[in-house]
Amino acid sequence: MVNWFGSLIEGAPWMFPDLLSLPLLGQVSEAEVEPLVLTSVLLSLIVVYLAAKVGSEICIRINLPPVLGELIGGLVVGVSVLHLIVLAETGDSPESALIKLVGWVAGLEGEALQQVSQAESRVISVLAELGVIILLFEIGLESNLKELIRVGPQAAIVAVVGVAVPFTVGTTGLITLFGLGTIPAIFAGAALTATSIGITAKVLADLKKLSSTEGQIIIGAAVLDDVLGIIVLAVVASLAKTGEVQIAHVIYLMVGAVTFLVGSIFIGRILNPYFVALVDRLQTRGQILITALIFAFLLAYLAAAIQLETILGAFAAGLILAETSKHQELQEKVSPIADMLAPIFFIAVGARTDVSVLNPFNPDNRPGLIIASFLVVVAIVGKLLSGFVVFGQPGINRLAVGIGMIPRGEVGLVFAGVGATSGILSESLDAAIIVMVIFTTFLAPPLLRLVFGNTEDAQGLTTAEIKATAPGEQQ
Amino acid sequence: MVNWFGSLIEGAPWMFPDLLSLPLLGQVSEAEVEPLVLTSVLLSLIVVYLAAKVGSEICIRINLPPVLGELIGGLVVGVSVLHLIVLAETGDSPESALIKLVGWVAGLEGEALQQVSQAESRVISVLAELGVIILLFEIGLESNLKELIRVGPQAAIVAVVGVAVPFTVGTTGLITLFGLGTIPAIFAGAALTATSIGITAKVLADLKKLSSTEGQIIIGAAVLDDVLGIIVLAVVASLAKTGEVQIAHVIYLMVGAVTFLVGSIFIGRILNPYFVALVDRLQTRGQILITALIFAFLLAYLAAAIQLETILGAFAAGLILAETSKHQELQEKVSPIADMLAPIFFIAVGARTDVSVLNPFNPDNRPGLIIASFLVVVAIVGKLLSGFVVFGQPGINRLAVGIGMIPRGEVGLVFAGVGATSGILSESLDAAIIVMVIFTTFLAPPLLRLVFGNTEDAQGLTTAEIKATAPGEQQ
Repeated sequence: MVNWFGSLIEGAPWMFPDLLSLPLLGQVSEAEVEPLVLTSVLLSLIVVYLAAKVGSEICIRINLPPVLGELIGGLVVGVSVLHLIVLAETGDSPESALIKLVGWVAGLEGEALQQVSQAESRVISVLAELGVIILLFEIGLESNLKELIRVGPQAAIVAVVGVAVPFTVGTTGLITLFGLGTIPAIFAGAALTATSIGITAKVLADLKKLSSTEGQIIIGAAVLDDVLGIIVLAVVASLAKTGEVQIAHVIYLMVGAVTFLVGSIFIGRILNPYFVALVDRLQTRGQILITALIFAFLLAYLAAAIQLETILGAFAAGLILAETSKHQELQEKVSPIADMLAPIFFIAVGARTDVSVLNPFNPDNRPGLIIASFLVVVAIVGKLLSGFVVFGQPGINRLAVGIGMIPRGEVGLVFAGVGATSGILSESLDAAIIVMVIFTTFLAPPLLRLVFGNTEDAQGLTTAEIKATAPGEQQ
Repeated sequence: MVNWFGSLIEGAPWMFPDLLSLPLLGQVSEAEVEPLVLTSVLLSLIVVYLAAKVGSEICIRINLPPVLGELIGGLVVGVSVLHLIVLAETGDSPESALIKLVGWVAGLEGEALQQVSQAESRVISVLAELGVIILLFEIGLESNLKELIRVGPQAAIVAVVGVAVPFTVGTTGLITLFGLGTIPAIFAGAALTATSIGITAKVLADLKKLSSTEGQIIIGAAVLDDVLGIIVLAVVASLAKTGEVQIAHVIYLMVGAVTFLVGSIFIGRILNPYFVALVDRLQTRGQILITALIFAFLLAYLAAAIQLETILGAFAAGLILAETSKHQELQEKVSPIADMLAPIFFIAVGARTDVSVLNPFNPDNRPGLIIASFLVVVAIVGKLLSGFVVFGQPGINRLAVGIGMIPRGEVGLVFAGVGATSGILSESLDAAIIVMVIFTTFLAPPLLRLVFGNTEDAQGLTTAEIKATAPGEQQ
């Protein structure tokens, strides 16, 4: 039974692929595929994280938001350039360069390797979806219902105008000027609505303008915009699934979205003390995190079950738990998980985008590029207008408020991702939206620095900032 | 193009499954399967977390280790009882009750639902594997090479005897007394070797015996045991893959395991300052976590590529990074991720176990039960012996040291999980190992309390403990 010398010739078994691939002759066995799915997922995650870190670190050094770097990193490792991360959308499973490496090391090919490729692609897709769910849960946790109510009417009007103008002009323009179908036009219009609270808040913090009146209005409006954008996305994505614009369905979904959000927050606030009491009584590891994840995943599932999007449920769960006394502790626990999973989402969005459709030397691409320029103009002008409707604040820098609303960031990419996954957006329209997101996210930080720099002479520092600055450091 | 009333009759679309399942007539589309994979994964995670929390919270209240509760929770939701989490191993995809619910809500059945079921099962399996990888990475981070060297020869001899005796007696007994094949016998013997550092440390901390001489030796030996157990698992699991015991291969693997572990730690220690310098230069979110994960996943992949186990690589990565000045910060970031992913592994192990083979009223099961009793006896006696080989410590409570080594905990379950996944262990042998893990993990805490209670009269409290206890509180 003991073979003392049998393996001497296979000291390096990966050198003899045919010795190991014998089981291929029969049915592909699960025991053969399963470990390779794991190792290919591990390799994919290494590639994802390297791309995310290299991209974001380069971007932050040239004063661009890190999320942009992750997207571009995804472009590089995805179908556009390196073909390392290839996420199947169409049902066929293209073998990425990475899967070929895994197959070569293990001596596996053919049907079994195709199964590995498909499974790996599905696992990475689900991890990416979990990433955006955790990200929206975290955004919810960082939001503050009371803060939203306090910044009140100013922020609300900026948010509403900043959603309504780009959406209406964008959708109408795409239908009338470009002859697009209603569904893709509405979807692309909806992608114009969101403001990235993460990017905006980061830019304002870097400029030390978070506590200025303009900063307060921008943050308040961005938070509201996030909520509006999520509702718009849920409505539009659900809409797109049925294939037609059915007004009764829109109303059903809007009522559903509002009822779900308001209802879950209402019930959530009632249940919040019980959440805290329950977590306090639990004695095992991860008591607050696991309890919160159960809640977030449950709301995400319920949102999906009533035809909304999972991310709406996750955001509502975050908003509810932000009201508890445990929100600080919970945020600390969720943050590393978002660090781990969110980059997978942004890389996946980039990896799915085929930028070759934007090559201007190919005549087929020109319509897409014209759409992209149209979207960029609408995206910028629509948000700039929103700054000019602020009332009752005579000395305010309206231009700064408008520019602060420009970056689309994560939420814009969520639209692009959902649109690409669901097959609603054509490749060129999807790429055009990503170009719009890249442009707006790109432009806002230097523009914001420019307009705030100009007002510094006119208005000077705020009282709080003067107090905070030591005399010796003041110029 | 706008249909104003079309959706009035489908206000509750899930009530009309045939309206939504029309695409089933043709090829099953990816766009139809993909969102359901996500929602079924979300539901599965909710079930996993509920089972893990209910199980561990009950266990901690009756003075048993929480991990035992997660295992039993897995038994309840798995193939043994509720059939909610059914992880396919054999290639066919059984539909769990949970998948049936997802299908019913979405109005999906047949081939498409089977695809959803298979994909969900694969995603949960990979998440479970990532869970055990992160767990071993965390155990590595919590270990301390210098500490291991300091407790020195005492701990080493306890560890070696505690591995060698149960392994030799167990494997020989299973082959000679029960006529088992060499591979399963070695695998089951190997499962007898590990000591759970987590459970042992927790029990000692609860008894305030961590700083006693016995406590120091137990912890040191348990850490070494963990490393030995991981090498044994890597060797045995790799062995099992080739189908025979090939001594040259064993040597190749042992040399490989030692070279890999020693080499990666050696090179790792050289690279450690660069890791710290790199992390310090990174400016974007998750700089330390993502850098560490890239390193851990890379070593895990390399270990798998040279036919060792992924967990060995993850453990080595943890051990290496434990030496850096950033290990505290890193541990805080990894901890919530382990909280999130590790329970999936334990629940999956429990869910895969069919305890019906342990029903004594079924005559077919009796051999399995006899094996289980044999394993339990060897597991306990083998570790008790290890306590009696401690030299140069005349006043020591040797019984306490031996009992402290008894709980098998996580590492024993890792063996059971790997054995079940790879198909090496028969159902009854796998269940017998789990019974052995449950018994040893169960027995150790009350036994340890008993023997340490007895020595308190003979030896009294240690000086450190007397100093730490205020006079008023002393009995």
